Amino acid sequence: MYNCALLKFKDIASQDGHLTSIEEKIHVPFKIKRIYYITGVAQNIARGFHAHRRLQQVLICLNGSIKIKVKNPNEEQIIELNNPSVGLYIGPLVWHEMFDFTKKSVLLVVASEHYAGEDYIRDYNHYLTEAKATFAEHPVNPL
Amino acid sequence: MYNCALLKFKDIASQDGHLTSIEEKIHVPFKIKRIYYITGVAQNIARGFHAHRRLQQVLICLNGSIKIKVKNPNEEQIIELNNPSVGLYIGPLVWHEMFDFTKKSVLLVVASEHYAGEDYIRDYNHYLTEAKATFAEHPVNPL
Repeated sequence: MYNCALLKFKDIASQDGHLTSIEEKIHVPFKIKRIYYITGVAQNIARGFHAHRRLQQVLICLNGSIKIKVKNPNEEQIIELNNPSVGLYIGPLVWHEMFDFTKKSVLLVVASEHYAGEDYIRDYNHYLTEAKATFAEHPVNPL
Repeated sequence: MYNCALLKFKDIASQDGHLTSIEEKIHVPFKIKRIYYITGVAQNIARGFHAHRRLQQVLICLNGSIKIKVKNPNEEQIIELNNPSVGLYIGPLVWHEMFDFTKKSVLLVVASEHYAGEDYIRDYNHYLTEAKATFAEHPVNPL
């Protein structure tokens, strides 16, 4: 799907537990400027509901499970994250919503830019207009 | 304690849950080149048992609780991490051990460098020799 991809990270597993390492420009396709994490979300709560103009992110569920809906004017998909060694890459102009956070779930996000309020598109109709204009100018062939 | 500090991050809390954002050079005193996370550690397992020559790291417990023993030739302290908005900064030449991982605990580490095997000091006697030599050359006044 446009500007979305599942990334598989190496899980270094032993009797001592599991370790996953993510290095910038090696395991994610950008320099890491920021990380953030979301915890303590009740199961009936949904978050997100925006797209970014420039930001690239990788979402990883470190405990429990979380569902992510990704959308663009032509496509829509729901992905369940429930494995610390799997990340969901979301690039620019992908509308996304997070929901069905299980109890004690942990969502970690690795981000390519510092926080910038003006990079957010929070109105879905504005998003559709902006995404359609971009897609018309730079046509995307579905994979 | 030498090259150790507790960092408090902003917890953006609402009915939608908790979000904590960590930006490089703003909330941690270095550029983030790598992150790694440790999960699935049994309660009787201890990890770490090394120091670094250059690496700076911030350890954050995102679920459950984890104890960290930090040591140098003159000091020793045990810190319990159990709050996603608190990080333990560990700089160079601090011996550290992690233990008492509770079930489903998640330890996230934000790191200043790519992985480099030669940066590790894994033998405690070597560590003592190297740390004492450095401390003799650059005396540290206890806080």
